[in-house]
Amino acid sequence: MKFTAKIIADFTKGEVIGNPDEVVSDISRIEEGKKGTLAFLANPKYEKYLYTTEASIVLINRDFQLNGNINATLIRVDNAYDAFTSLLELYTKMIPEKKGIEQPSYIDPSAKIGENVYIGAFSYIGPGTVIGSNVKIYPQSYVGDFTQILDNTTLYTGVKIYHGCYIGRECTIHSGVVIGGDGFGFVQQPDQQYRKIPQVGNVIIEDCVEIGANVTIDRATMGSTIIRKGVKFDNLIQIGHNVEIGENTVIVSQAGIAGSTKVGRNCQIGGQVGLAGHLKIGDNVKIGAQSGVSNSLKDNETVLGSPALDVSKQIKAMIVYKSLPEMSKRIAELEKELKALKERL
Amino acid sequence: MKFTAKIIADFTKGEVIGNPDEVVSDISRIEEGKKGTLAFLANPKYEKYLYTTEASIVLINRDFQLNGNINATLIRVDNAYDAFTSLLELYTKMIPEKKGIEQPSYIDPSAKIGENVYIGAFSYIGPGTVIGSNVKIYPQSYVGDFTQILDNTTLYTGVKIYHGCYIGRECTIHSGVVIGGDGFGFVQQPDQQYRKIPQVGNVIIEDCVEIGANVTIDRATMGSTIIRKGVKFDNLIQIGHNVEIGENTVIVSQAGIAGSTKVGRNCQIGGQVGLAGHLKIGDNVKIGAQSGVSNSLKDNETVLGSPALDVSKQIKAMIVYKSLPEMSKRIAELEKELKALKERL
Amino acid sequence: MKFTAKIIADFTKGEVIGNPDEVVSDISRIEEGKKGTLAFLANPKYEKYLYTTEASIVLINRDFQLNGNINATLIRVDNAYDAFTSLLELYTKMIPEKKGIEQPSYIDPSAKIGENVYIGAFSYIGPGTVIGSNVKIYPQSYVGDFTQILDNTTLYTGVKIYHGCYIGRECTIHSGVVIGGDGFGFVQQPDQQYRKIPQVGNVIIEDCVEIGANVTIDRATMGSTIIRKGVKFDNLIQIGHNVEIGENTVIVSQAGIAGSTKVGRNCQIGGQVGLAGHLKIGDNVKIGAQSGVSNSLKDNETVLGSPALDVSKQIKAMIVYKSLPEMSKRIAELEKELKALKERL
Repeated sequence: MKFTAKIIADFTKGEVIGNPDEVVSDISRIEEGKKGTLAFLANPKYEKYLYTTEASIVLINRDFQLNGNINATLIRVDNAYDAFTSLLELYTKMIPEKKGIEQPSYIDPSAKIGENVYIGAFSYIGPGTVIGSNVKIYPQSYVGDFTQILDNTTLYTGVKIYHGCYIGRECTIHSGVVIGGDGFGFVQQPDQQYRKIPQVGNVIIEDCVEIGANVTIDRATMGSTIIRKGVKFDNLIQIGHNVEIGENTVIVSQAGIAGSTKVGRNCQIGGQVGLAGHLKIGDNVKIGAQSGVSNSLKDNETVLGSPALDVSKQIKAMIVYKSLPEMSKRIAELEKELKALKERL
Repeated sequence: MKFTAKIIADFTKGEVIGNPDEVVSDISRIEEGKKGTLAFLANPKYEKYLYTTEASIVLINRDFQLNGNINATLIRVDNAYDAFTSLLELYTKMIPEKKGIEQPSYIDPSAKIGENVYIGAFSYIGPGTVIGSNVKIYPQSYVGDFTQILDNTTLYTGVKIYHGCYIGRECTIHSGVVIGGDGFGFVQQPDQQYRKIPQVGNVIIEDCVEIGANVTIDRATMGSTIIRKGVKFDNLIQIGHNVEIGENTVIVSQAGIAGSTKVGRNCQIGGQVGLAGHLKIGDNVKIGAQSGVSNSLKDNETVLGSPALDVSKQIKAMIVYKSLPEMSKRIAELEKELKALKERL
Repeated sequence: MKFTAKIIADFTKGEVIGNPDEVVSDISRIEEGKKGTLAFLANPKYEKYLYTTEASIVLINRDFQLNGNINATLIRVDNAYDAFTSLLELYTKMIPEKKGIEQPSYIDPSAKIGENVYIGAFSYIGPGTVIGSNVKIYPQSYVGDFTQILDNTTLYTGVKIYHGCYIGRECTIHSGVVIGGDGFGFVQQPDQQYRKIPQVGNVIIEDCVEIGANVTIDRATMGSTIIRKGVKFDNLIQIGHNVEIGENTVIVSQAGIAGSTKVGRNCQIGGQVGLAGHLKIGDNVKIGAQSGVSNSLKDNETVLGSPALDVSKQIKAMIVYKSLPEMSKRIAELEKELKALKERL
């Protein structure tokens, strides 16, 4: 598919500087731009590439000051990043959508299937399950018994959702995600063996949640593990039983949240972070990558490290930590000098 | 399904305080209790909810002293937690069990299948494989060639077991678990390329093991990677080749154990812990979350941190660590004062 | 299958010391050796087992000096480890290979399938996809639309590859791997909700790459996430969008690499390491287990810890860290003594 600068400018409400008939058929990053591609410049760090890129068209901010000659045709827009994202969205919508029910697939006769769905081959829909309209279930996915998946949600290939769970509208769930496996609940008996505590709750995923590949979200012991509206999960994250994640919180890959912890809204949790169980994390909390959190946190706190400290305290401690061997020598020197001084007196 | 207080009291050998005909049809946590549900109180921390809960029936310990008025019908039992767990077990047993062989599934003609099994659609049973009685294999699971799965074991949907492995009785294996993938064994050649060391061993899982979602357990280079009886794994754990985990050891999610390490019995390994390879970890060892262990540990040790130290030493060091910036200032002050003193003399 | 010492010696160009007709039918580790098995001794740490092993035949280095009596028949070779590995390779090649297309499987009519392939039951090959010769795709794997898989590559059961990706020759990809899921790209809007940045790039895996179970490799936002020739990944690793991993780099399990980071050649990255995004890691870099790297690293650096420091600095700091409580006391003592001294004067 080919687009001219003029068409792109019309769509993005931009102004063409250069050849309005310049044609692109692909996109590129400005630093890797090739003839026939469209790129954008938003981050000033990349400005140098603007003057050397081979991309045919570049989107830039309307108020951007040029500091050199350029070869590309420019399209000036209010916000180059947003405009480019809108073009990407348009581009992805032009890919033909998957539709229909491929065979063989297994749909229990008691399941209710909405309109305009895609159910890929080798997928399994259990009894009593309800699939909304425009839902896409890629091949080899599993939706257990008495589960609900609301409209416009996509499960990529190989998603596994146990019985009795609930997935809202407009969610995107990537391959290998497991939702509703048993929480990790055992009681040690006098003979050291563990007795399993039955996990009879479920998982509730609200609307507009995205869940990365191979994430695991355990069902509640009782009640529900809840992922609120607009939450975004990267890959390989662990969510324990009875956890609740507040609206619009984002969690980076390989973080783990132990059972019964409640995380507030608009939090940002870094990669490989660990949160202990039964904590209460406030709203707007930021937790740096690899932190280990074993205490509850108030709204707006920013913490770092394992164990986690307030970020500014942690950074100061980290700086001193690096000089510990030198500090050790300074203490030994002080002791020596003081001893010498005392002997002199 | 509905139960009266009297029926529950009979089952739990308890005593009804209140209305023996009070009816419940669901369970709840005491702090979230609603009319028509059964809750329990075991942890004294939750006592305050006893006086406010809307749960219709609450199980409490026989010797528990009331400190306020309650609305719920009580059932006094020897151990409220155990009684509740027994009721949950009963409850889960009342869910109709999956049975029979769904189509399409792939069962090699040379596989031997026990009695009363469930084999879900799109599951694959390889040649020479033996499946015991009462085994449940949920849809889309894979059991490779010449593998054994003994009686009463459940594989949830999408479990993958490579060839030649052995799974004992009464095991529960959750979705996305991979058992028997190749161990990570390569030798670097003079030209920097790696040559793979064939991994010709297997994995042995003994009886009563539970394995959480998306766990990976590699096959041995030679011999067996062994998970002993009663071990419990949370989600997303990595077990390297030739590892051995002792009886009744529990490992929390996202921990990783490198090749050839042997872990003893009754150990507790926290979330996101890393154990280096070729270690020997004794019995009854406790390893705190996010610890990094690169040395062998004796029986009954408790360690924490990365690198791991004895827990009491680690906690003391962590406390001082927080005050490092202040300590740094104190040293500078000492140096200044000592210098001033020397000059004065 | 049975082999005599003479046959093994012929294959390994070795010399038999003992009975050339000694027969073995299996292999073992020297410390677990049983009658009828072949073992080897390469690491001098295991020498003691040479004199006690019940293995019938042991491969040892030609120049190895015996320090005791042995029961086993020896075969002396130039390099016992290499010779044993070669035997293992021979052994694995003797296992009959999977071949043919099992039913039911789903192969889009527009897909092109090479010669001599194995496509297991319940596997899915999307439209426009090209599968090379001698490729093995185990059951329940998914190869999305317009993806290429070149000759001699093996996908084990349950591998998921999204559309538009490219997998080279001689690759081995283990169960549960997800290649080409969306990168984690969102922009927060003024109302706190996140807008997804469409991820329209792909993943390129070059030749001779091995990828462990349940690894996730995200597609690029634009362009490609690239895994170069000869890279080896252990299990449960996370690779973010637009990451590039250089030739012959090895990464141990549960490590995570955030978006747009470029890692050089011949690097060794330990287990549970985290690399922040947008870094440049040079060639031959070594990163110790559980390290957290938030700065770029030059060629040949070796770092450890979170935050990562040069390994020798880190080890020195770790040693002092352990004695922090004692150091704290020494400082208090110095302050006390200095105060006393000042008062005396």
